[in-house]
Amino acid sequence: MDEEFSEEELLEKAEKPGEDALRLHPFYKGKIQTNPKCSIRSFEDFGIWYTPGVAEPCREIDEDPEKVFEHTNKANMVAVVSDGSRVLGLGNIGPKAGLPVMEGKALLFKYLGGVDAFPITLDTEDPEEIIRTVKILEPSFGGINLEDFANPKCFEILDTLREEMTIPVWHDDQQGTASIELAGIINSLEIVGKDLEEATYSIIGAGAANVALTRVMFTAGVPPKNVIISDSTGILHEGREDLEKNKDYNPYKWDLAKKTNGEGRTGGLEETIRDTDVLVAASAPGPDTLKKEWIEKMNDDAIVFVVANPVPEIWPWKAKEAGARIVGTGRSDFPNQINNSIGFPGIFRGTLDVNAKTITDEMAIAAAHAIAETAREKGLREDYVVPTMDEWEVFINQAVAVGQKAIEQGIARNELTKKELEESARSRIEKARKWTQSAMEEGLIEEPPEE
Amino acid sequence: MDEEFSEEELLEKAEKPGEDALRLHPFYKGKIQTNPKCSIRSFEDFGIWYTPGVAEPCREIDEDPEKVFEHTNKANMVAVVSDGSRVLGLGNIGPKAGLPVMEGKALLFKYLGGVDAFPITLDTEDPEEIIRTVKILEPSFGGINLEDFANPKCFEILDTLREEMTIPVWHDDQQGTASIELAGIINSLEIVGKDLEEATYSIIGAGAANVALTRVMFTAGVPPKNVIISDSTGILHEGREDLEKNKDYNPYKWDLAKKTNGEGRTGGLEETIRDTDVLVAASAPGPDTLKKEWIEKMNDDAIVFVVANPVPEIWPWKAKEAGARIVGTGRSDFPNQINNSIGFPGIFRGTLDVNAKTITDEMAIAAAHAIAETAREKGLREDYVVPTMDEWEVFINQAVAVGQKAIEQGIARNELTKKELEESARSRIEKARKWTQSAMEEGLIEEPPEE
Repeated sequence: MDEEFSEEELLEKAEKPGEDALRLHPFYKGKIQTNPKCSIRSFEDFGIWYTPGVAEPCREIDEDPEKVFEHTNKANMVAVVSDGSRVLGLGNIGPKAGLPVMEGKALLFKYLGGVDAFPITLDTEDPEEIIRTVKILEPSFGGINLEDFANPKCFEILDTLREEMTIPVWHDDQQGTASIELAGIINSLEIVGKDLEEATYSIIGAGAANVALTRVMFTAGVPPKNVIISDSTGILHEGREDLEKNKDYNPYKWDLAKKTNGEGRTGGLEETIRDTDVLVAASAPGPDTLKKEWIEKMNDDAIVFVVANPVPEIWPWKAKEAGARIVGTGRSDFPNQINNSIGFPGIFRGTLDVNAKTITDEMAIAAAHAIAETAREKGLREDYVVPTMDEWEVFINQAVAVGQKAIEQGIARNELTKKELEESARSRIEKARKWTQSAMEEGLIEEPPEE
Repeated sequence: MDEEFSEEELLEKAEKPGEDALRLHPFYKGKIQTNPKCSIRSFEDFGIWYTPGVAEPCREIDEDPEKVFEHTNKANMVAVVSDGSRVLGLGNIGPKAGLPVMEGKALLFKYLGGVDAFPITLDTEDPEEIIRTVKILEPSFGGINLEDFANPKCFEILDTLREEMTIPVWHDDQQGTASIELAGIINSLEIVGKDLEEATYSIIGAGAANVALTRVMFTAGVPPKNVIISDSTGILHEGREDLEKNKDYNPYKWDLAKKTNGEGRTGGLEETIRDTDVLVAASAPGPDTLKKEWIEKMNDDAIVFVVANPVPEIWPWKAKEAGARIVGTGRSDFPNQINNSIGFPGIFRGTLDVNAKTITDEMAIAAAHAIAETAREKGLREDYVVPTMDEWEVFINQAVAVGQKAIEQGIARNELTKKELEESARSRIEKARKWTQSAMEEGLIEEPPEE
């Protein structure tokens, strides 16, 4: 696309979704609704779904609490929970302003993964209160998707809830982002003919996403010494006294400072980036967070993922001009969308279908390989390192891989076969898409107005 | 129907909904789902509904929090909240076993009132924690429907939340039940030619529903002295030392003991009921809670509402045999269903359409008159004192009456005209029904299996 458009046109194009969003959000007044899941043949059916009939399923669950998965939609219902303390690149905008993002996420859960999801934004920023509230909500849900919590409280919230709840708890900005980024790295390295275990990596930003990414990369085989990470103060290394002092508050970062950066580099962004093969930035929204000159100093065949939202750390065409061979962003309007939307719908689909108790890093890595493989089967290109959201087999493939890994790890309550996993994912996703399609055809979801 | 069936057949018929419920709940695995509310023309639209476009609506809400009603579905989304501490007639069965009821309620909210509703059952019974949790959930919702909380904590929870939240909070077992019962009383008295202000009333049970009913009856014009209430200990009167001792814990009941029962009756159920015109029982599930002989001692043209769930305090055919002229129950499978399902969908429809800050007793009474009027227009009969759920104009009529009352009382943020109120209610309810209908036609909601 770089050849086809002037920079001005590209900038204009990049602003279009925001303009449409401001116009169309008030037209629809919300992106998610509730609907009956059961048949209503006549009003007599309400005697089955409500009083008096409903008393019988209640009695059964009272005797055997596990029956709640049979008699209700708990098994397929995920809460998308946020306090709005770190929303996209917008920072701490709070629970009301964060709600459109959580509604959008719930929309993607259903449309892409056939997972019912409900947006819940919390009117508190206190980690203890957040933890207590989410635990109190457990009976209604089969899974919890934490979203856009500030760093480092997001780690404590996730770790505590995973420990204390009996349903899977997932912070999409951690494992979800890691899955899709790892998939993109695997396929990009294949295109340029470099090896995952030998390549060098610059990681810009030490927030939740990148901390989780490096943890998952290490588990997947990347040697920590090959990774150089920088935060807003500079490169992470053992000599950083600020990190050592702060290690009780943020042990994750201090741990990374000790084990990464084998060369012992110090300095700022320029020093982080030079002579590396792969750059992953999840830092401050651009478009001028990263300079063209810095990208120029990367190794040949550089791979650059700039995933800040809503505007990447550098516009993709600039990174290309600086010599990057493969560029990905978090946006759906540029090639190579490195966004967790490719991951969570399929990962949760597989997790819920086997009724797994948690989502392990190994399940996230299995999803990454399924994402990478889906694109490889279609033929990799520099502008196609991961599948796009409309290649819906990517979600089915992940659901199968994730479900199988959960069974292998002994944390699945339902041990489905590979064929059953595939059929379940396919039919549920197909149904979700048909609901929307048919509602649009019948005018139950209206056409958006002309500009 | 009494003439047509033998008692055995009637009993069998009464058990059918429970049998169907046990068979069909696991078939559908849940009664409520989430679906997109906005158009998805292509995958490019996700750039509008999610990143990058969604950042713009978020920014607008961050600047002006009231815009959350424009950019999200908050304005039409109600939480159906319970701790499962007093579910139907089943008692304290907890949050998992209570979930099928809350899902059923959410189903009715959408299908009958066009109100999106989401079931949330809480894993705590502590009133303070319940209050704190519901307040923390406020950003995502336009209203709160409290359901099946035990007495008397339900009063404290409702009163505190109404005081401290900026969206309407409603305990359906209080005002909701009162609305439909008042409507039934008004029309039944019309049939038998007695006057609301001169009739005498026996009220069995002093739980949340009946306490609220009597409060609403007094506001509507019934003199307290004409009302005799009994709880499990006996008739409420000034001499009841147990109530006086307990007045800090349950001030509502002591207040009633002082102002009702002008004759100063004492004794048990039989004494409560004799020589009254209207009996309303919301006590323990039957069918033998009330004896035939007691009903026989009521005044001529007795009106008997026995609304315990799932089984009424006395089977309706027995009450008829005892001489009752008009009998109502809470069940949808007998005539005269005195159940709050006739009320809350329309009451919330009107409340949300004018974006009212609360729901007053006057709005509940306006709803009661709208319910009564809807049946009167069709012609009252002994087996038709209130409309049934499939006469959907009852919900539109209530929405208009409730919206107009809120505007009159100065608590509405949107001042719609009567015509606008009617159009809004009609189109939203129509759309909700069409969604379900069309999903059934296309097999997206499957036919239930044969027995």
